[in-house]
Amino acid sequence: MKPHIRFDTGEMALHLLDQRLLPTECSDFVCHSMDDVIRALKDMVVRGAPAIGVTAAWGCVLAADKTARETAGDWRAVLDDMLVRLAAARPTAVNLRWAVERMRGVWEAAAPDDCEALTGLFLREADAMQKEDVEICRAIGHHGATLLYDGDTVLTHCNAGALATAGYGTALGVIRGAVDAGKRIAVIADETRPFLQGARLTAWELAQDNIPVTVACDNACALLMQKGLVDCVVVGADRIASNGDTANKIGTHGVAILARHFDIPFYVAAPISTIDTRIADGTAIPIEKRPDEEVRTVGGRDLVPEGVPVYNFAFDVTPAQLISGIVTEKGVLREPYDASIARALRERTA
Amino acid sequence: MKPHIRFDTGEMALHLLDQRLLPTECSDFVCHSMDDVIRALKDMVVRGAPAIGVTAAWGCVLAADKTARETAGDWRAVLDDMLVRLAAARPTAVNLRWAVERMRGVWEAAAPDDCEALTGLFLREADAMQKEDVEICRAIGHHGATLLYDGDTVLTHCNAGALATAGYGTALGVIRGAVDAGKRIAVIADETRPFLQGARLTAWELAQDNIPVTVACDNACALLMQKGLVDCVVVGADRIASNGDTANKIGTHGVAILARHFDIPFYVAAPISTIDTRIADGTAIPIEKRPDEEVRTVGGRDLVPEGVPVYNFAFDVTPAQLISGIVTEKGVLREPYDASIARALRERTA
Repeated sequence: MKPHIRFDTGEMALHLLDQRLLPTECSDFVCHSMDDVIRALKDMVVRGAPAIGVTAAWGCVLAADKTARETAGDWRAVLDDMLVRLAAARPTAVNLRWAVERMRGVWEAAAPDDCEALTGLFLREADAMQKEDVEICRAIGHHGATLLYDGDTVLTHCNAGALATAGYGTALGVIRGAVDAGKRIAVIADETRPFLQGARLTAWELAQDNIPVTVACDNACALLMQKGLVDCVVVGADRIASNGDTANKIGTHGVAILARHFDIPFYVAAPISTIDTRIADGTAIPIEKRPDEEVRTVGGRDLVPEGVPVYNFAFDVTPAQLISGIVTEKGVLREPYDASIARALRERTA
Repeated sequence: MKPHIRFDTGEMALHLLDQRLLPTECSDFVCHSMDDVIRALKDMVVRGAPAIGVTAAWGCVLAADKTARETAGDWRAVLDDMLVRLAAARPTAVNLRWAVERMRGVWEAAAPDDCEALTGLFLREADAMQKEDVEICRAIGHHGATLLYDGDTVLTHCNAGALATAGYGTALGVIRGAVDAGKRIAVIADETRPFLQGARLTAWELAQDNIPVTVACDNACALLMQKGLVDCVVVGADRIASNGDTANKIGTHGVAILARHFDIPFYVAAPISTIDTRIADGTAIPIEKRPDEEVRTVGGRDLVPEGVPVYNFAFDVTPAQLISGIVTEKGVLREPYDASIARALRERTA
């Protein structure tokens, strides 16, 4: 799969493969400003925690570039305000805030006198973050590949793939890692209502890489597990608390309960940056509500009678005790997660 | 809600509210022949086990009428062939075969010399079956109402409502029964992919009756239960084995596992006729596969990449041990179900 996040330094524009149009149309959403980036994040042109982080880093570049070109007075205050707005574009993904914080760190460390210089520093950092993200995914894939057996069918929920990262993917990185290691792996992709990331994105990117994939409605999960068609579950994560509780796409918690019921291993695959150490457990993770329209309408067809309300929580939180392992770039973390997470974080900063 | 299955004896035609067009359009699919009825059953103009039974009874009337008008030779053989075809229109719903068998019973008992006479007998029997079905649903509602408390929110899956029966409904009959008994009941309707019976039909018919209903995607179930938003689950059934194992819309089994995980009562509501005593347990219930198109496309929009296969099993089987009670017109059956079911069947034939 070719890169879906591509910054053009000539035109100073961020090209994002518009994921809303997949699987039927492949075309770019081009961001010429930070506000375009915020719109892309809010409207889910791009989604997935690591991809959101890298996209936000490029948003910082566009913010600095605009500030450098247009602000006569106190550029630091103007840019600061912009970065605050960018960091708030999506509430659940910790990577968004993490990416903006990292750019702020570059800013503080270098403390440049003018915004042009800062734009250059931001550009170098965003580029490094994008490359690092792919490397991290490859490391996740390398560690996770050991958990899958030749001939396994892996069920995944939502899209924690190349399209959710800068490339290669987290959950799908584990699958790609196993395939790259010579194992025959088949995938069942939950369609993942309401935004259908499984049917539209996971199926699309696996098909691009010739990895066998079958799409199932979310509610088929128990039957498929009961029939013995699922050997293992691997999903991504939007935020992980210090104790291992994991926020991910709505429906993940249900899949984890079903996997436990049928005695099927359930793994989370995510970079260490997904862990939010300020949060002790899942109860403190805010759950984003998204527009009703995503549930009410598909393909211009109204599915719900006028006047009837809907629920559209975007995420749920899977308790750590339902998770068989958390696959990170540092290796597979196991219970008790508070200890294994703390150790992985120490190694990371060491 | 006004009747959605209506036979016009003047034009000898069966008017079915076309459920495929709900919730945006209310218009009838008119059946002038048994083949029209088979098409309506196969294409899900009408669905739901008891509604399928009543519709099939009217299909027998149209078959006899056509045979009487058009067959010069051995009308018995012609009609027999037609009824065999009708009984095979949908594989999972036992009520379809049950209804056709009942009409055959009328035929055998009366043994009329000509097919005109048989048409008249069939007409009277179909009309009786339709009226009985509403009475049975009201009895289910009466018994089930005792299981719900004032202020409860009930989650239901698919549509086991007036639209799935001749009127009043089974699972929604329990809800209507509680509301009729003066209890304030709110409903969460799983949207029920792929055919969206929850979003389109359950929400529509409850809204018609001013019963508060909120639609949620199937995969939101665990979160809603975890949040304490669900007090009780009530679903319908397409076929119940002698031991209580229950085939119902795909996803029901998953909801039952989640309900058990969160310690929420899970009830099945169905007429005694749904019990198939020839089947010892759920493993022997055939699971209908339906066309891929239902999963692949919504509102003319392709959700799944071309060439990627899909699963579309229409039903799953919930093991009896996950069921808190089976609400029938004879009362609420409890574990052990083999005994309580046998007792209810004895009472029925007594």
